[in-house]
Amino acid sequence: MIHFADRVAAAVRAKRNAVCVGLDPRWESLPLELRQRRGDASLAAIASAYEEFCSRVLDIVAPLVPAVKPQSAFFEACGPEGMAAMQRLLCKARNHNLITILDGKRNDIASTASAYADAAFGGTRLAARTFPVWEADALTINPYLGRDAVEPFLESARRVGAGLFVLVRTSNPGAGQFQDLLVSPPASSSHSTDNSSPRPLYQYVGEAVGAWARENVGQCGLGDVGAVVGATYPAELVMLRKLLPETIFLVPGFGAQGGKAEDVASAFRPDGLGAIVNSSRGILFPFKPDDPSWETRIDEATRATIAALDTR
Amino acid sequence: MIHFADRVAAAVRAKRNAVCVGLDPRWESLPLELRQRRGDASLAAIASAYEEFCSRVLDIVAPLVPAVKPQSAFFEACGPEGMAAMQRLLCKARNHNLITILDGKRNDIASTASAYADAAFGGTRLAARTFPVWEADALTINPYLGRDAVEPFLESARRVGAGLFVLVRTSNPGAGQFQDLLVSPPASSSHSTDNSSPRPLYQYVGEAVGAWARENVGQCGLGDVGAVVGATYPAELVMLRKLLPETIFLVPGFGAQGGKAEDVASAFRPDGLGAIVNSSRGILFPFKPDDPSWETRIDEATRATIAALDTR
Repeated sequence: MIHFADRVAAAVRAKRNAVCVGLDPRWESLPLELRQRRGDASLAAIASAYEEFCSRVLDIVAPLVPAVKPQSAFFEACGPEGMAAMQRLLCKARNHNLITILDGKRNDIASTASAYADAAFGGTRLAARTFPVWEADALTINPYLGRDAVEPFLESARRVGAGLFVLVRTSNPGAGQFQDLLVSPPASSSHSTDNSSPRPLYQYVGEAVGAWARENVGQCGLGDVGAVVGATYPAELVMLRKLLPETIFLVPGFGAQGGKAEDVASAFRPDGLGAIVNSSRGILFPFKPDDPSWETRIDEATRATIAALDTR
Repeated sequence: MIHFADRVAAAVRAKRNAVCVGLDPRWESLPLELRQRRGDASLAAIASAYEEFCSRVLDIVAPLVPAVKPQSAFFEACGPEGMAAMQRLLCKARNHNLITILDGKRNDIASTASAYADAAFGGTRLAARTFPVWEADALTINPYLGRDAVEPFLESARRVGAGLFVLVRTSNPGAGQFQDLLVSPPASSSHSTDNSSPRPLYQYVGEAVGAWARENVGQCGLGDVGAVVGATYPAELVMLRKLLPETIFLVPGFGAQGGKAEDVASAFRPDGLGAIVNSSRGILFPFKPDDPSWETRIDEATRATIAALDTR
């Protein structure tokens, strides 16, 4: 069983870039040819269009990038048929040897968290058997509930060499409402540390993520628990990179959301590892819906994104 | 369009209790007769057993309680077939005039959050049409990403008179790792209030939830944004009830997790409104798997839970 971070490192080295293509299908942006082929709109038809579009995107980007990140919300929006489409796309991505990051931002406690985690990774364990569900290489999770609620995700991921990306600093403009709050451990807390001076919540959460990452470090020196840190907050990226040397960053917000290549550069270690930069709209939808050469446009946009992020 | 809190109040008054039955199906606990009927275990067979069990639970509890709360993790664990089973159960619960609270703990930003929210409530809006997906009356969400990430959920819920329950104080033993951190708002913060003394993060989040709730208050005096507050933290329940007079509490952790009736009593306003108390295992699984009278046991357990919580 190869460590998650080592699999990511191998994929990044093989493709010579750390770009992750976000699979965020949006009906209004799909090529007209895919939409028009499905005359009577139904959720099943929309899910089918999403699947065909993303499947063709996978064929285009698989030779170029190391990872893809299906956004579960857009598939859930199509109901059970959408989830079935996502399942087949995850399977196809694996067969293309892409690292698959399921963006579900899941969170719950105890056996409920295990249910999400087993579904994401090794499979649902019931009736003395294991049934594969999403079979992703990594899952995004939300940390608000604390370590014991993260634990089932950790256990499930570690059973099969998968990874987690924990929300630390999200890319939205209002991320700071809670994440920037200056916090300090309560005096009586068992969580208090030597460093009890007030610091922003995202940094405190980041330190916890760093500690979880250090529990299981691969040969590349990075752990199997990563942090989501938005490209839209470059100063925080710089600070967190220094604070968390063993933590892989999943960096959303590049491109359409405003994150720039020089901002993102600080997410990496000097050896070019340590970060995966996601691009969704910038790669998926660089064409007008009536452009018959939309696949060429996606290929060009993928290469342009890779070039823009190549700051070596 | 009747306000969410008024619909909850009417249901609570009609049933003379505020019990919510958590639909958390677990294979190992299901009646043997439901398991044995499905010889070759597959996720589809397990989803079918979950659906039959929960469907029979709905028939038993619908005359007795005002609300049910399907836990999406257990259905997602069965893959797309599980999600389809959850969809049909939500439909059946609505037809029984039960308030349906989808426990998904969803969270994301911008249009991605809208995708989750529209699916949960009024339906996915695509191709100039609206397609129903889960059609729940309320959804649980996670606040870590901040107000602008909650906004799409609020907008989507308010479009159809639905409600939100925001995680404030979760019921797990380690909830305090982040939720108990002491917050000192920065002096320059636009979020700072008159009350700038340090207080725990969950309280700070609770105050934000209270402000969202006050934006849209029903005739019963309660808003359409509620707070999840675990029965396992009675002191926090008392404090939050005083702090948030317009906020409905969804209270997990009663029974199996250790929350007691006297703890839960403080979640209510003097008029008996203001809280919904969830019970999952205590109501779903009061029988041994080989008990042929398991439906009677569920009926008895539901009535016993209602009686235990009746502190008037």
